[in-house]
Amino acid sequence: MKAPSSLENLIEALRCLPGVGPKSAQRMAYHLLQRDQKGATKLAGALTHALDTIRHCRRCNSFTEEEICSLCRSERREASLLCVVETPADLMMMEQTQSYHGLYFVLMGRLSPLDGIGPKEIHLDRLIQRATDGAVNEVILATNFTVEGEATAHYIGEILRSRGVKASRIARGLPVGGELEHVDSGTLAQAILERREV
Amino acid sequence: MKAPSSLENLIEALRCLPGVGPKSAQRMAYHLLQRDQKGATKLAGALTHALDTIRHCRRCNSFTEEEICSLCRSERREASLLCVVETPADLMMMEQTQSYHGLYFVLMGRLSPLDGIGPKEIHLDRLIQRATDGAVNEVILATNFTVEGEATAHYIGEILRSRGVKASRIARGLPVGGELEHVDSGTLAQAILERREV
Repeated sequence: MKAPSSLENLIEALRCLPGVGPKSAQRMAYHLLQRDQKGATKLAGALTHALDTIRHCRRCNSFTEEEICSLCRSERREASLLCVVETPADLMMMEQTQSYHGLYFVLMGRLSPLDGIGPKEIHLDRLIQRATDGAVNEVILATNFTVEGEATAHYIGEILRSRGVKASRIARGLPVGGELEHVDSGTLAQAILERREV
Repeated sequence: MKAPSSLENLIEALRCLPGVGPKSAQRMAYHLLQRDQKGATKLAGALTHALDTIRHCRRCNSFTEEEICSLCRSERREASLLCVVETPADLMMMEQTQSYHGLYFVLMGRLSPLDGIGPKEIHLDRLIQRATDGAVNEVILATNFTVEGEATAHYIGEILRSRGVKASRIARGLPVGGELEHVDSGTLAQAILERREV
């Protein structure tokens, strides 16, 4: 006996969530329909609303519902510091350390020639324009310590140095091969303090 | 700095999923928006569609998109056997053992006086009507081996016996306190074979 097709579809659709396999997806689908239809309605609405309203900030590239995000508009942030991260989730991790008070630039990826992701895809032109606009004194490279993240940091560092912009790299306090999203705030805070010039 | 409100709402809404805490919800939300907007759209659609189309089978009470579900309509099932389970997910677990070929009745819960769930809420009238319609020779009680599941099986078993209907209980092959949803098919298959009269 097969489950109704719309239930099968829901189970299949839930598998787009990270870390959710066939068995978890099945449990989630039944849980929603049996015990939390209200939550399911809210989730469907929240997904649709987020997809409709979330766009990229024209300055930092992170997620926002406005032209320019509230962080970029804030007067309490040090405009002389620019931190480069791979994703909006990484930006959120940096914020949660409460150790950084400058501005951000989100690459929305990292250099990966094999996947067709080059300087254009990570918006390098916009980053360089931003870094050389006079307000920025230092660019902190906070890409992941993966092979691709390191290559991306090296590449951007070289270009910035050639243009006379000071660039630094967060300290390798994180485990090699690790990703920002999975690190505890304390370790990441240490890494921000121990950033070194490249 | 706070995330955009529609992103915060999405993170909050994802927490309705079983086993998803604040950190997982955050990772899921960013994953969907950064890397799988297509999957998110599909998920929102699947949720809405499932909520719209899924209802309860008029005969067995399980999830279906029709009046009477395909299992109840099937001519290949033994109409003389009726298996009572707590939820549609439990029914699915029974089916996955491929050891049972009768029909079902889904209580959509278990007796729990403290939560206000009495005989009416588990549709006991409909179950008794079904069990005494002449076609059913045996009712297999496959509620969970939790305190409430056991009490429910005992209660239903007593009533059926008083009406002259043979009732059996799946064998206590499952660990005490365990739930059908989490057991492997082999153990559950054994428990179906070793059911005992109550």
